[in-house]
Amino acid sequence: MSSASADLFAPLFADPDVLEQLSDRARLQAMLDVEAALAEVQAEIGIIPRDAAVHIRGAARADLFDLNTIAVETATDGVPTIPLVRHLTKVVQGSDRDAARYVHWGATSQDIFDTALVLQLRRAVPPLLAHLDRAAAAAANHARRYAGTPMAGRTWLQQATPVTFGLKAAGWLDAIARQRNALASALEDVRVLQFGGAAGTLAALAPHGIAVTERLADRLGLTAPDLPWHAHRDRLARFAAALGVTCGVLGKIGRDVSLLAQTEVGEAVEGKGGGSSAMPQKQNPVAASVALAAAVRAPGLVATILAAMPQEHERGLGGWQAEWVTMPELVLLTAGASRAVAGLLEGLVVHEDRMGENLHATHGLIASESIAMALAVHVGRAEAHRMVEQAARHVRNHGGTLADALAADPDVTRYLMRADIDRHLTPEHYVGAARELVERALRGSKTM
Amino acid sequence: MSSASADLFAPLFADPDVLEQLSDRARLQAMLDVEAALAEVQAEIGIIPRDAAVHIRGAARADLFDLNTIAVETATDGVPTIPLVRHLTKVVQGSDRDAARYVHWGATSQDIFDTALVLQLRRAVPPLLAHLDRAAAAAANHARRYAGTPMAGRTWLQQATPVTFGLKAAGWLDAIARQRNALASALEDVRVLQFGGAAGTLAALAPHGIAVTERLADRLGLTAPDLPWHAHRDRLARFAAALGVTCGVLGKIGRDVSLLAQTEVGEAVEGKGGGSSAMPQKQNPVAASVALAAAVRAPGLVATILAAMPQEHERGLGGWQAEWVTMPELVLLTAGASRAVAGLLEGLVVHEDRMGENLHATHGLIASESIAMALAVHVGRAEAHRMVEQAARHVRNHGGTLADALAADPDVTRYLMRADIDRHLTPEHYVGAARELVERALRGSKTM
Amino acid sequence: MSSASADLFAPLFADPDVLEQLSDRARLQAMLDVEAALAEVQAEIGIIPRDAAVHIRGAARADLFDLNTIAVETATDGVPTIPLVRHLTKVVQGSDRDAARYVHWGATSQDIFDTALVLQLRRAVPPLLAHLDRAAAAAANHARRYAGTPMAGRTWLQQATPVTFGLKAAGWLDAIARQRNALASALEDVRVLQFGGAAGTLAALAPHGIAVTERLADRLGLTAPDLPWHAHRDRLARFAAALGVTCGVLGKIGRDVSLLAQTEVGEAVEGKGGGSSAMPQKQNPVAASVALAAAVRAPGLVATILAAMPQEHERGLGGWQAEWVTMPELVLLTAGASRAVAGLLEGLVVHEDRMGENLHATHGLIASESIAMALAVHVGRAEAHRMVEQAARHVRNHGGTLADALAADPDVTRYLMRADIDRHLTPEHYVGAARELVERALRGSKTM
Amino acid sequence: MSSASADLFAPLFADPDVLEQLSDRARLQAMLDVEAALAEVQAEIGIIPRDAAVHIRGAARADLFDLNTIAVETATDGVPTIPLVRHLTKVVQGSDRDAARYVHWGATSQDIFDTALVLQLRRAVPPLLAHLDRAAAAAANHARRYAGTPMAGRTWLQQATPVTFGLKAAGWLDAIARQRNALASALEDVRVLQFGGAAGTLAALAPHGIAVTERLADRLGLTAPDLPWHAHRDRLARFAAALGVTCGVLGKIGRDVSLLAQTEVGEAVEGKGGGSSAMPQKQNPVAASVALAAAVRAPGLVATILAAMPQEHERGLGGWQAEWVTMPELVLLTAGASRAVAGLLEGLVVHEDRMGENLHATHGLIASESIAMALAVHVGRAEAHRMVEQAARHVRNHGGTLADALAADPDVTRYLMRADIDRHLTPEHYVGAARELVERALRGSKTM
Repeated sequence: MSSASADLFAPLFADPDVLEQLSDRARLQAMLDVEAALAEVQAEIGIIPRDAAVHIRGAARADLFDLNTIAVETATDGVPTIPLVRHLTKVVQGSDRDAARYVHWGATSQDIFDTALVLQLRRAVPPLLAHLDRAAAAAANHARRYAGTPMAGRTWLQQATPVTFGLKAAGWLDAIARQRNALASALEDVRVLQFGGAAGTLAALAPHGIAVTERLADRLGLTAPDLPWHAHRDRLARFAAALGVTCGVLGKIGRDVSLLAQTEVGEAVEGKGGGSSAMPQKQNPVAASVALAAAVRAPGLVATILAAMPQEHERGLGGWQAEWVTMPELVLLTAGASRAVAGLLEGLVVHEDRMGENLHATHGLIASESIAMALAVHVGRAEAHRMVEQAARHVRNHGGTLADALAADPDVTRYLMRADIDRHLTPEHYVGAARELVERALRGSKTM
Repeated sequence: MSSASADLFAPLFADPDVLEQLSDRARLQAMLDVEAALAEVQAEIGIIPRDAAVHIRGAARADLFDLNTIAVETATDGVPTIPLVRHLTKVVQGSDRDAARYVHWGATSQDIFDTALVLQLRRAVPPLLAHLDRAAAAAANHARRYAGTPMAGRTWLQQATPVTFGLKAAGWLDAIARQRNALASALEDVRVLQFGGAAGTLAALAPHGIAVTERLADRLGLTAPDLPWHAHRDRLARFAAALGVTCGVLGKIGRDVSLLAQTEVGEAVEGKGGGSSAMPQKQNPVAASVALAAAVRAPGLVATILAAMPQEHERGLGGWQAEWVTMPELVLLTAGASRAVAGLLEGLVVHEDRMGENLHATHGLIASESIAMALAVHVGRAEAHRMVEQAARHVRNHGGTLADALAADPDVTRYLMRADIDRHLTPEHYVGAARELVERALRGSKTM
Repeated sequence: MSSASADLFAPLFADPDVLEQLSDRARLQAMLDVEAALAEVQAEIGIIPRDAAVHIRGAARADLFDLNTIAVETATDGVPTIPLVRHLTKVVQGSDRDAARYVHWGATSQDIFDTALVLQLRRAVPPLLAHLDRAAAAAANHARRYAGTPMAGRTWLQQATPVTFGLKAAGWLDAIARQRNALASALEDVRVLQFGGAAGTLAALAPHGIAVTERLADRLGLTAPDLPWHAHRDRLARFAAALGVTCGVLGKIGRDVSLLAQTEVGEAVEGKGGGSSAMPQKQNPVAASVALAAAVRAPGLVATILAAMPQEHERGLGGWQAEWVTMPELVLLTAGASRAVAGLLEGLVVHEDRMGENLHATHGLIASESIAMALAVHVGRAEAHRMVEQAARHVRNHGGTLADALAADPDVTRYLMRADIDRHLTPEHYVGAARELVERALRGSKTM
Repeated sequence: MSSASADLFAPLFADPDVLEQLSDRARLQAMLDVEAALAEVQAEIGIIPRDAAVHIRGAARADLFDLNTIAVETATDGVPTIPLVRHLTKVVQGSDRDAARYVHWGATSQDIFDTALVLQLRRAVPPLLAHLDRAAAAAANHARRYAGTPMAGRTWLQQATPVTFGLKAAGWLDAIARQRNALASALEDVRVLQFGGAAGTLAALAPHGIAVTERLADRLGLTAPDLPWHAHRDRLARFAAALGVTCGVLGKIGRDVSLLAQTEVGEAVEGKGGGSSAMPQKQNPVAASVALAAAVRAPGLVATILAAMPQEHERGLGGWQAEWVTMPELVLLTAGASRAVAGLLEGLVVHEDRMGENLHATHGLIASESIAMALAVHVGRAEAHRMVEQAARHVRNHGGTLADALAADPDVTRYLMRADIDRHLTPEHYVGAARELVERALRGSKTM
């Protein structure tokens, strides 16, 4: 809504280019862009004089307007378009009395306001997509480079079976690439002109309403809708949801990295961690925290946009207004998280040695599925599972290696020799289709 | 999570077919379907004996299992798949000792659990889509039938300019059709097998992991993913979001109808309203309340799915579990609201007489934009706006008609004769492109 | 997070005094206030030289610091306190080399940051409470003045039975007063110093840690907690929830007023409505829209604060950061809505004539419970309900008054004479304990 | 809403006693309890015959009603109270024709429905509080027992400075105790009768309305409100929020334990972990996952209750209905998480050896603040920080201990001897006021 602690956190949480496109100034400019384009297409059709359009275009520069005045008057008028149109009329009057008569001709506030929002989204989202592309490229590099680097796979935060770091990075890549495309497609979907006049009938422009709609869309690089969408917000909601899902994808990466970077794990750390005001040794995973914070914040913001959908009749009150600050905030948040994760992945320092150490820390337990499958061939899956579970319990309670515990069990050695046991319990041998899966992800993300 | 007040509200809020597909029993069956199909494709490839697959398939019937026992054991195991596999193994043992050895071969709980969820979605969502189709058809009928029926357009809950009821219905149609397609497409997107084994490497099935994946997907009518998606929940999140947006679209219709049905408005009422335990005259808009309740509940449920996304490493804890009850709840909620709105629109009783009365209730004020545009040609938009605003204020404060107030203003009569004024202030004349827009919506929703 | 469209909407949605207290500058100042107070109590105890404290206090003025620089460095350090402490040290060095050695002695970033947030809340919330007091006073005035003004009560948006406008206003008063006190009490609850040093043991200040804590709390006008609460955010969450509930209370009033102000209802309108860029006759309920927008936005913001609670170990990452923008935003939103509703209620224009007209618009249906109760004495509640329901159906389908329809039914006239029927169906007679309830609310809100 | 996968997860996620109190059956019984008590107080006052009350009380047993029939009819009537009253009337008719005339006398559906919800909350929440008490007691035990057990404190998931496990447990205790009291107090706050008749005026009971209200509240063990609260939901919202905050408090504990239980950390594990269907060695932190899942789900559910608040006029549509499933779900969720955390804390297995190992894993880095403070006395905080940061970097890049690195720096040894360095770098020596803080928490939680 507001400038509460607006700028202090901007460099941490936001992307400056996206911020610029979503600023107040940019919002005014986008509204003015719509007013100018409207005048131009009306002049083309012959609804207003050509000269009027020239003067309106000339006045449609945000720097000619005082943001504060418009903000203050918005408090009375309820929508910034109303004071903006008033001041635009004055500015045009200053250059041509007659032209001023045609400002905002046949339009309503929401036409200008909503279309301006769409223009802002169209301008602000491409840098966000570029960050996702960077993040995907960096994840792809890790996937390729570490395709064969074994590490502990972890489920429920417990070591499970080995994976490779390449496979983990391929998972990130796969999700980023998929969501990047979903977001780009949602941007296409939302790139739609809102134009309907006072209550959506285009009556003030009859009989030219639909012609104006189509030319205006064309001139602004937007799609012309079948119907004005003033009170139907599903496109915006789908776009908001796409942003929210993007934050979730990025948050997952932030979570993984924050966990890998733990002092006790130490398998991958941010190249550029933050410090501490108290502890000289600290290197905090700042980028991961930015991604995670976005993943915490986005669900509530998406929920707001969804909750705002049941708007009353031809223009809502409450729901529409709730979107005004929430939509840009969500874009900004997602862009900031995308930038943070791109930087995080590009700079990620991978400690293969720690991966190796951790993989062996459980003395074979991490490969217990491997030996269970080898036994299962002989005794069935359930019985094999039970046998290995018993040996694993022994290791946890009395120490030693899983290989020793199994080798001491005649039920096991009836089927497997010690060398077999050792081979099955070598974690590096038990990474399955990891490499092939990495290749699939690399191919798949390209064709996406 | 639970059976808290589970069934009491089901007939009101839910669809029985969808409920059936999302029941505990159906969830067990879906898990068993995956286990059986897994055994069959493994038999085909030669990983397990053909006979084993036959016995496993034979045992994969939910009615052979005691739901309560599995529920109780889930409290210990943490995931229902674990006790289910245990009991499935026993059931198979009952028919063939050897076959039991191959139950759940090379799979992990999440493979079965997540894929079962996908199967449930695939089964539960088509009836939901059918309700949306019914709702769209009913909205299209209203749009066609009432394309020329003028009524008050309302913005900020104030009468604004005239629209037609057909145009309002076309707006509903347009949004339903668009979101119906978005949901169907999200269903396609989520129709993806989850299969990766313990930590996603398919190691227990090496070297057949990917072959099993592809055949299993095929057999279950699902898509094979490039990578297992156990810890990447973006597809589910996109689907949840599509459900949430659907509830928003339906809630908007519920809101409009609840407002139209107000005693003081009375323009359209539910054919089958509910009664009151206290007031004999009451006819409550029950279907609208169901749609609105869904629109209030869905944002929080979608937020939950989004908040659950940053799942730890190869299988999360907390986030994954939060999905278990939330995803089906969201499907059920959306299906119930779709059914309610389909019924609401099919049975909607439209009172054209009240629409006419309300349109004239303001003595011309509703057409003030019309006269302002007529004056604007002579004096410019801003000045015309001011002139009509002044006359409107006079009407509000001292009564009379807008036509009289304007006719008393020499600044107006300099440009417009009384007959012109009256013509411009006839609301029925001022519905612009309403009819053409309705046709666009009817065409557009067909091609969608 | 950011300055996205920060200022354009501030005068509409926010309160300038509260905004000031939540600005970046105010946040820096609050952090500096904590640093200075810390130095002073440490000097008192003898941990650092008295002179150092004097120099640190002297440097603790936000205007000595460049907000931009600190913002930019926050992007690297992860928390604004880190660059702030660095620059504070420099500023102190400028005045006294030795004093600079004692800046931020034994503290950690979060101590300063969280305590500063608490200070900001303590400063920002009283104006918010004052708006609620104004709103309560205005509601009380309406309750008193219109205690006997009958109007239609409406349930499910259908006319139900008569109420009085005073009773409706008393309901608003009751809720505002109750929530105002809940919020004030939540402010008391959250007014707690955070101080624990690096990981909450106060080790860097041993053996003076707890003494510093208690004196620091005292000096800042805060409560000293039993334990540092760095990773336990329940107090903040309770406060956020109290803000969210406040927005809900205000949104309910906004909704009621927006419905009363409908053109077709017209019973109460905002004194200062907004206009329209298209329609000269419009008077939009702007204040109601501000309250409703807050009620749409607050749930998502509260959900964010709740979702942020499970913070990792001694300081979280992601959750903590998610609070930074969300908490102030929520305060600002609630303050803006409180101010809007205060203005709305103070300026509300009540149209008793329209209330009367609407009350009679259903020709007696609104009093059907009244007559049903009169019949129930004779035939029982259920049978009476059925009889009146039948008459009401007749009125709805064939017009006429409920009195006529009932008078035509011999089953009715067996028990009630026409005069009785007419008396029971006079809505003004059927407002029950409305006046007494108003008085209870007026008394109750005073003692709260 | 519904029985979607209702029972399968109940033993995992819910508490059976609480579930019982929130079941459909219990809801019917609570509604019947209200109807019976209403008849009784009306008989006392002389509004209805004493005999009627006896028969109504006799019929007010949920087992006399068919849940399915009531559920099916709810779909038409919109509220379960309507069919329930119809069937109650029939049952009473069966025993006494005359008594049946007085069923539901002067009440409206919402009176019964909302008051029944309050009764259910009053019955369901005490077991929840008991779980919190168990959890607090178990946390207190850990706090006491391990008050002096040093372990690594972790901020941003990085080792920070030493803490003690007792201090960590004291933090849990402190938060549980505080929130337990907040919840108990919110239960007091919500324990309020709803009774107002059709639209809140008590008109059907005039002149006895308020007397009935007060006696009814008394008989049901509830508070009589100043005003009916049918459309003012702040009490429910505050209660929902208290449940949400409780889930957050529990989720924080779940998160901590899940992190402590990581294979690579291993400092504390659940006594009764879950297994894996694939991996024999696994012991999954099931209780932690239940708590975390609750913390993921609760924010969305609380947001729903908040979003439902702006209810229309004297009875909303949409918002009210959204509460019906959400409130019990939230209670159930919180109770389940409370029970899980109680069990978790009672059974927690603490590995002091692993705490010791991890504390020394960084070769002194974890105590770097300690040495920095020692140096700060000589060179100032900032310079000391810089010196230790440099040594820490050396250790991270080239191995060795922090003590060696510092001892090799003449700038350090100018002030500190090797023995001092070693002493300062002994993590066990650097736990500050941990023990005292534990005692404060133990005392504080008792007085709460």
